[in-house]
Amino acid sequence: MTTDTNQDKAIRDDIFEYASYLEFGELHFKVDNTTGLRACIAIHSLKRGPALGGCRFIEYGSTMDAVRDAMRLAKGMSYKAAICDLTLGGGKAVIMKPANMGDREAFFKVFGQFVDSLNGRYITAKDSGSSTADMDAIATETAYVTSTSKMENGLNGDPSPFTSYSVCRGIEAAVQFKLGQTGLNGIHVAIQGVGAVGYGLAKRVHELGATLTVSDINPESTQRCAQEFGAQVVEGDAIYQVDCDVFSPCALGAVLNDDTIPLLKAGIIVGAANNQLARTRHGEILRERGVLYAPDYITNAGGLIHASAQYHKSSEKTAMEQISRLYGVLLGVFDRAEQDGKPTNEVADAMAEEKL
Amino acid sequence: MTTDTNQDKAIRDDIFEYASYLEFGELHFKVDNTTGLRACIAIHSLKRGPALGGCRFIEYGSTMDAVRDAMRLAKGMSYKAAICDLTLGGGKAVIMKPANMGDREAFFKVFGQFVDSLNGRYITAKDSGSSTADMDAIATETAYVTSTSKMENGLNGDPSPFTSYSVCRGIEAAVQFKLGQTGLNGIHVAIQGVGAVGYGLAKRVHELGATLTVSDINPESTQRCAQEFGAQVVEGDAIYQVDCDVFSPCALGAVLNDDTIPLLKAGIIVGAANNQLARTRHGEILRERGVLYAPDYITNAGGLIHASAQYHKSSEKTAMEQISRLYGVLLGVFDRAEQDGKPTNEVADAMAEEKL
Repeated sequence: MTTDTNQDKAIRDDIFEYASYLEFGELHFKVDNTTGLRACIAIHSLKRGPALGGCRFIEYGSTMDAVRDAMRLAKGMSYKAAICDLTLGGGKAVIMKPANMGDREAFFKVFGQFVDSLNGRYITAKDSGSSTADMDAIATETAYVTSTSKMENGLNGDPSPFTSYSVCRGIEAAVQFKLGQTGLNGIHVAIQGVGAVGYGLAKRVHELGATLTVSDINPESTQRCAQEFGAQVVEGDAIYQVDCDVFSPCALGAVLNDDTIPLLKAGIIVGAANNQLARTRHGEILRERGVLYAPDYITNAGGLIHASAQYHKSSEKTAMEQISRLYGVLLGVFDRAEQDGKPTNEVADAMAEEKL
Repeated sequence: MTTDTNQDKAIRDDIFEYASYLEFGELHFKVDNTTGLRACIAIHSLKRGPALGGCRFIEYGSTMDAVRDAMRLAKGMSYKAAICDLTLGGGKAVIMKPANMGDREAFFKVFGQFVDSLNGRYITAKDSGSSTADMDAIATETAYVTSTSKMENGLNGDPSPFTSYSVCRGIEAAVQFKLGQTGLNGIHVAIQGVGAVGYGLAKRVHELGATLTVSDINPESTQRCAQEFGAQVVEGDAIYQVDCDVFSPCALGAVLNDDTIPLLKAGIIVGAANNQLARTRHGEILRERGVLYAPDYITNAGGLIHASAQYHKSSEKTAMEQISRLYGVLLGVFDRAEQDGKPTNEVADAMAEEKL
């Protein structure tokens, strides 16, 4: 789901107005003066199941910035779970990172008690700024937590390989739909960002016969792809102009914008990054240019499926099978977008709403 | 508890800042676009037990006005339960009254589901703007509700007789402390407001031998007191200037202010109204003038004790015994205030804080 950010100020600055606008739901706040905890848990929808969503721990300019972030992201989680046919609702937590942090373990334990008080309506997970160790601290206070360090049925706290796989399945679906080709033999994929997820993706598509071009701010990461997969390496913004079949944004958000879209030569975009479209309207711009865009919240759903599997103590095999089925979900979105002459991001949102 | 309202705007306008300032606690928000419900439940403290507090259903100028009201009142409930030695925490709910109300029963049912989702951390009750019928609608969705129409062990939803009794016990304690007299024989009590609570108080003190002066905006209410108890009747602000032993505000809040205090001839103030002191500092002004003020949140605690008894299915007898013990609570406050040379309202707050 993409949300444009130019809503009326009166709506943006009022909790009830903004919640109503996003069709909430519930919001829960906890303040603890002893540890300095200031946390907000946003639960957008519980219709499909408990709300599993990450816990952001970053600095915010204001309380309303933090609350809006929680609400916007929670709604995104509802859509993601719905379109991917997961039995999960949509929720997200934000914790305002204090200027001076005291005992971090005690801090996250109090957050764990807060999560526990909601009796499983919300299940927390690692997100920007929070760590596996934080999840372990939370787990001393509540069972409603995932992405801990504890191994369960071969699943550990690292979702990267699962996200890599969901992006790979997205590329396979898009290549099938757009080029009529089964498998990735001879397909040229340009990956922006080859950290944990991008590297795993490079490995997978290489094994399926694709050729690679990669970029990353870290030269060691690109070097490894060159050595192991024979990838071409380009610097910085050159990745947008690579003459390839698939462009795969696996680093930053908002990389599909007015500046970059005219540069792209790829006919397919499938990546792991969150919020790839700078604005909702960029989905329409891509459609007009004949570029097939796979909505990011479907293609990177491997991470959520991993967290859900860890929480439900199901196996890696089950999680991987669930991720594999995203192929069919995406074909459904592509089909309907073509039939209705609409951008894929809007079609995905509409299909998610039908399931909510 | 009295809270001055001139806090820094930056604190007042920020949920986390204001909550931290009031030493919260938790806040929960629910939005339901179908019924139009916009509700906030503030839980200040759970240390002594579940947070029992009323549900206000009134129009607010803004969301933050409503949220601040909930937080301020919830903190007051914490103090009230603590000073009265009740095994309750402190909480309050506010619902923003919509301009156009649809199906009221459905509206309060959704609120009931919201209350239920907190699993008994908060127990709701009737308050300004909400009715017994609303509580009955809530009760179809949750067990965490009191002041319903259902009779339990002779206790029904009307707390007035219990509040009358707690005020009466307050007058007895103050007369004992200040005048050294046991019982109210010959004591002159001036009651401002003889609605349900004030009338019940008039009846009680009359039976104990007191003489009465009463005022009310409703002439039928004063007439009844004149006929049944031989009460003198005065109009409007004349009640402040009655040459009596006890002034008992049982109508409006903030009646002890810079304008009224110089008019008072009574040496004792004990009433049922909430927030009788316009500002915290008016407690000190009364002390300097030698007036014994019984903190309102103790003297009107009969209502809370009634709600708690109804919720816990205990008997009227048990509730009345508990109310009777407020006599000792007040003597403790009066003693310490005299020893420390401090106003009774500040001493009561300090004693409540020691129990929180």
